[in-house]
Amino acid sequence: MTAKQRKTRPQAVLPDLPSTSYAVLGLLSGERELSGYDLRKWASNSLHFFYWSPSLSHIYAELRRLEGLGLVSQRIEPRGELRARRLYRITPAGLDAVRTWVRTAPVDSTVLKHSVALRVWLGHLIGLDSVHDLVAEHIAATEMLITDIRRAHDTAPAETTNAYAQAILEWAQEMQAAEIDAFGRLQAKLDRTRPALPAKAS
Amino acid sequence: MTAKQRKTRPQAVLPDLPSTSYAVLGLLSGERELSGYDLRKWASNSLHFFYWSPSLSHIYAELRRLEGLGLVSQRIEPRGELRARRLYRITPAGLDAVRTWVRTAPVDSTVLKHSVALRVWLGHLIGLDSVHDLVAEHIAATEMLITDIRRAHDTAPAETTNAYAQAILEWAQEMQAAEIDAFGRLQAKLDRTRPALPAKAS
Repeated sequence: MTAKQRKTRPQAVLPDLPSTSYAVLGLLSGERELSGYDLRKWASNSLHFFYWSPSLSHIYAELRRLEGLGLVSQRIEPRGELRARRLYRITPAGLDAVRTWVRTAPVDSTVLKHSVALRVWLGHLIGLDSVHDLVAEHIAATEMLITDIRRAHDTAPAETTNAYAQAILEWAQEMQAAEIDAFGRLQAKLDRTRPALPAKAS
Repeated sequence: MTAKQRKTRPQAVLPDLPSTSYAVLGLLSGERELSGYDLRKWASNSLHFFYWSPSLSHIYAELRRLEGLGLVSQRIEPRGELRARRLYRITPAGLDAVRTWVRTAPVDSTVLKHSVALRVWLGHLIGLDSVHDLVAEHIAATEMLITDIRRAHDTAPAETTNAYAQAILEWAQEMQAAEIDAFGRLQAKLDRTRPALPAKAS
């Protein structure tokens, strides 16, 4: 962060919450009432592709924490013959907190634990043929992921999407396409060094 | 995983370890003796860019766990006037374990928590101008990261690198360059929709 940015962005006082709490507040920031099930379904069609794929129990744990802090409220909705359900809504304090977080969180807090990259990095332990198998398997899985992102993008209900959400799903597709390209180049590069690399494990 | 792969890759019996343990075993898999400090230094010039940037205390915790399982051994090296130091070495069982993990770990265990993407996804809370500031800050940080990766690639000592390690650092550079390109396109796309987007927060 430059000195200029530091001056124009005063340190906000934020509740000391994990970023997953802000992700749940973000899902609620449209100010509609949502159930835990709604939240999980929406997360699995959006956050899942770039951030987090929470279980229902994780979502309920976050909601309890946020409710304890006065950042969300809940009510029971009776549904006649159907089982009553619990609906959650963001409070004005919650909206302030998530807006401040979006504006001021540090940019360097991205977490990437790329286990396929780690395994290729250790390719000398399994040999070039096995590395090729591994990368091919990863590329196939990434192609399926792109299909899932595209479907989520194309079928997002109007009430859960906007230009930002759509742009990020397009960004996520592009990044996964770049992943396939970069791993394809890696395979070609390793093949060119094949004479120097044992095909079987060292 | 396809049925064919399932058949040709029998389920290996692996110690139930977090992947960070395998990362430490991987650093030791060259079979040289290394100190905790050596391991951290090497991790910060390699794993850091695609997997994990461990603290010294985290490395020592992993080494204790691995030693308890018989996967690494240690000895004290006297160094005359200098303080003696503790050196770690992978055992044959450790080498077997990390090789099996590299060959058989699931490809879908990559973790990505992209907080900048999450914040852009919530751009309606801060408005387009603030989203542009955020993306510009992230692009600048990513440019610095590419410089760091390139330096690590170009200065890697011969005893800690090989064709796989070099190829992954080149892959990491390409992925960060793709990140900059994709966020640049996202900015252009949001600008084209600017008439429909409030510049200030909703």
